[in-house]
Amino acid sequence: MNHPPSAHLWPDNVRNDEGTWSMAGLTFAELAERFDTPSFLLDVAALRRRARRYREVFQGAFEAAGAHVQVYYASKAFSSTAVLRWVHAEGLRVDVASHGELLTAVRAGVPGPDIGLHGNNKSDAEIALALDHGIGRIIVDSLPEIDQVAELARIRGVRAPVLVRVTTGVHAGGHDFIATAHEDQKFGLSLASGAAAQALELIEANPHLELRGLHSHIGSQILDPEGFAAAAGALFTLRADLAADGGPVLPEVDLGGGLGIAYLPGDQEPNLEHIAARVADAVLAASEKDQLPLPELSFEPGRAVIGPAMCTLYRVGTVKPVALDDGGQRLYVSVDGGMSDNLRTALYGAAYHADLVSRHSTAEPLAARVVGMHCESGDVVVRDVRLPADITAGDLLAVPATGAYGRSMASNYNLVARPPVVAVADGGAREIVRRESIEDVLALDVG
Amino acid sequence: MNHPPSAHLWPDNVRNDEGTWSMAGLTFAELAERFDTPSFLLDVAALRRRARRYREVFQGAFEAAGAHVQVYYASKAFSSTAVLRWVHAEGLRVDVASHGELLTAVRAGVPGPDIGLHGNNKSDAEIALALDHGIGRIIVDSLPEIDQVAELARIRGVRAPVLVRVTTGVHAGGHDFIATAHEDQKFGLSLASGAAAQALELIEANPHLELRGLHSHIGSQILDPEGFAAAAGALFTLRADLAADGGPVLPEVDLGGGLGIAYLPGDQEPNLEHIAARVADAVLAASEKDQLPLPELSFEPGRAVIGPAMCTLYRVGTVKPVALDDGGQRLYVSVDGGMSDNLRTALYGAAYHADLVSRHSTAEPLAARVVGMHCESGDVVVRDVRLPADITAGDLLAVPATGAYGRSMASNYNLVARPPVVAVADGGAREIVRRESIEDVLALDVG
Repeated sequence: MNHPPSAHLWPDNVRNDEGTWSMAGLTFAELAERFDTPSFLLDVAALRRRARRYREVFQGAFEAAGAHVQVYYASKAFSSTAVLRWVHAEGLRVDVASHGELLTAVRAGVPGPDIGLHGNNKSDAEIALALDHGIGRIIVDSLPEIDQVAELARIRGVRAPVLVRVTTGVHAGGHDFIATAHEDQKFGLSLASGAAAQALELIEANPHLELRGLHSHIGSQILDPEGFAAAAGALFTLRADLAADGGPVLPEVDLGGGLGIAYLPGDQEPNLEHIAARVADAVLAASEKDQLPLPELSFEPGRAVIGPAMCTLYRVGTVKPVALDDGGQRLYVSVDGGMSDNLRTALYGAAYHADLVSRHSTAEPLAARVVGMHCESGDVVVRDVRLPADITAGDLLAVPATGAYGRSMASNYNLVARPPVVAVADGGAREIVRRESIEDVLALDVG
Repeated sequence: MNHPPSAHLWPDNVRNDEGTWSMAGLTFAELAERFDTPSFLLDVAALRRRARRYREVFQGAFEAAGAHVQVYYASKAFSSTAVLRWVHAEGLRVDVASHGELLTAVRAGVPGPDIGLHGNNKSDAEIALALDHGIGRIIVDSLPEIDQVAELARIRGVRAPVLVRVTTGVHAGGHDFIATAHEDQKFGLSLASGAAAQALELIEANPHLELRGLHSHIGSQILDPEGFAAAAGALFTLRADLAADGGPVLPEVDLGGGLGIAYLPGDQEPNLEHIAARVADAVLAASEKDQLPLPELSFEPGRAVIGPAMCTLYRVGTVKPVALDDGGQRLYVSVDGGMSDNLRTALYGAAYHADLVSRHSTAEPLAARVVGMHCESGDVVVRDVRLPADITAGDLLAVPATGAYGRSMASNYNLVARPPVVAVADGGAREIVRRESIEDVLALDVG
């Protein structure tokens, strides 16, 4: 059993036996035959291992200090009932940010106490459903939301458990972070302006709300722990100040998500043990300073759990060599999907990798660009990759690390039907999100 | 009847009577009540007038020279059976770029000869359906596609009418254009490399193909005609060279689309008569030089026809003042949609305008940002706009010029259901694309 080149980009159970690529015992060619292309292929064991690992590493880092740690799976990266069942079975709780995501968690059988509700503009219907399902926490994002949640709780005769989303001024992404006083963004209540403190006071005074703790989220695709450490320091100071002013000792602190993954052969996965240990150090130092009992801590990886557990399988169509003004040449390799199933390349300028997965080629690797079939020149899947010179129509091409924000941001642009998510495990495979038919797409057109 | 401020951004039949905004006689409040929010509102008369105007202005500019002109509506901007029926009734033909768009044109009753098929990676199924429907033209985009179309035509015993998409090296957008030898993009056959000439030769020699002419597309959101003039010069030179070498005199030249629209109060609509006249001058000058009969000409506006005929109606939720590091303040106004129904702000950094449309406010206008309800800080609908200081939850807000690439690029991100397109005309309104239900969205989740 041979691992593919750049094995760290591919789901755990992908193998490359002399050009015959497979996932969990099924060749990509068989999968293409059974499920057609494009398809998202989910390595179920890889997903479960990653979920377990994130929980174990974060719990392990705080074990000596006796702190409880919860890891929440961020639904926005990708959500389906099967995926939520699997990550919940591995001990993760679930974050949702909309009515549809909450319904999916409910239908997956995730108990209310294991769900958190996010959002900068929650509707009454979302909050009502959350309370009726006995949700574990609502992350309050603005001052008006305090009354909104309280009123819906009052009607139901319950106390709504809430966290306050605090904007600490810390922004992180990649290997760096910045800290500003104010945050020019839609989320959260500002620490610097006093809005966060005001929210804590209002919640504490409201009999229909149960103030559980503080929340912060500092960014995405984070590879370095220093931003988390800085945000933790700010939240623990706020918690200590509240207690010192005669307020409660808040039992929960959530440090959010945003951990990065590897997309390119030269990328490394972030060192999870290192990040968890550094965050634990910062939390324990802050906690030692304020002399309060440690809160329950939580983290919210989404992309890092699901992203590397999936890849996208495409069939190659038109291959076109294009001469460049510098005398070079680029191979434009068209596939049967595009920005409708992977928006990140166009939206964020994100970089991806791709490999020929249906045969072994000894042809020279050429500079190539994988493009979609949409009527738009920005419809690029992989901007820069080397592919064999003999790649041709009918070949299968796979793109790794597409589990997060691939299917979840998919569209019907050009009235194209969206791909399925195929779960592969132990030599078996089935659709967990079925392929959309063109009739599904056109059914909304009522003339 | 009072026109709204910045009336040129809104559909023709939008009125503002002391804060009560309406479209074609129905108030935005009534429309919100009947169809809920968010909704795309289409002013049918405005759409039809714009379609008619684009046809008449381009036909008029070439009338004295006796040239026939066809205007094709580009489905990718927005496509539904009702919209295609209306633009076809106004004398436009229809461009499609996928199986779903072609099916929509067929179901709208657009005759095959009035349809053109685009695409850099056409599937056999798309081409077969096009030929079976007696399509007017297939715009060939690569050398391998020549054999692909020819084989499908041979099987059917028909001759497929084809144009060759030529990359001339001219790129345009806004008020400028550039010209390079080669084009580093997925579309078309290069003039400079000789690929375009090779394609013409192959098609001419193939008994299953009927070579109809040349096509070029130079960009999008174009406000200045010089790029069209430059591309026309290049295509006419190619056409004259072909004839001089003993080849046929090609009967068609398509100069593509990409005409811009106004998005902001300070933007002007491009001067259509001026653009058409300048393009006509360039075409007639080229034609005079080569001493050949004028070809039939065609143009392909999409955005320019549908974009300004629609606006999006949202309901305001959370309003949050955010302090900025420079001492200023920004009002974050959340609405019940976001990047799932208007991706262009996040995808292209596109700028939009917004107005309070449910009441008259005399409150001071403040610097504001209209944001969506998605769990993503980049989820912005309108980056910079001034809105009354008293804007509050429950108010209705409308964003103009959202007809193109709004609903067509919409997604279910965060498992949010997509808005309907409501056609409004003569005091009546109905959904032409119905609102998606959350059950529609979750129906694809098969567990």
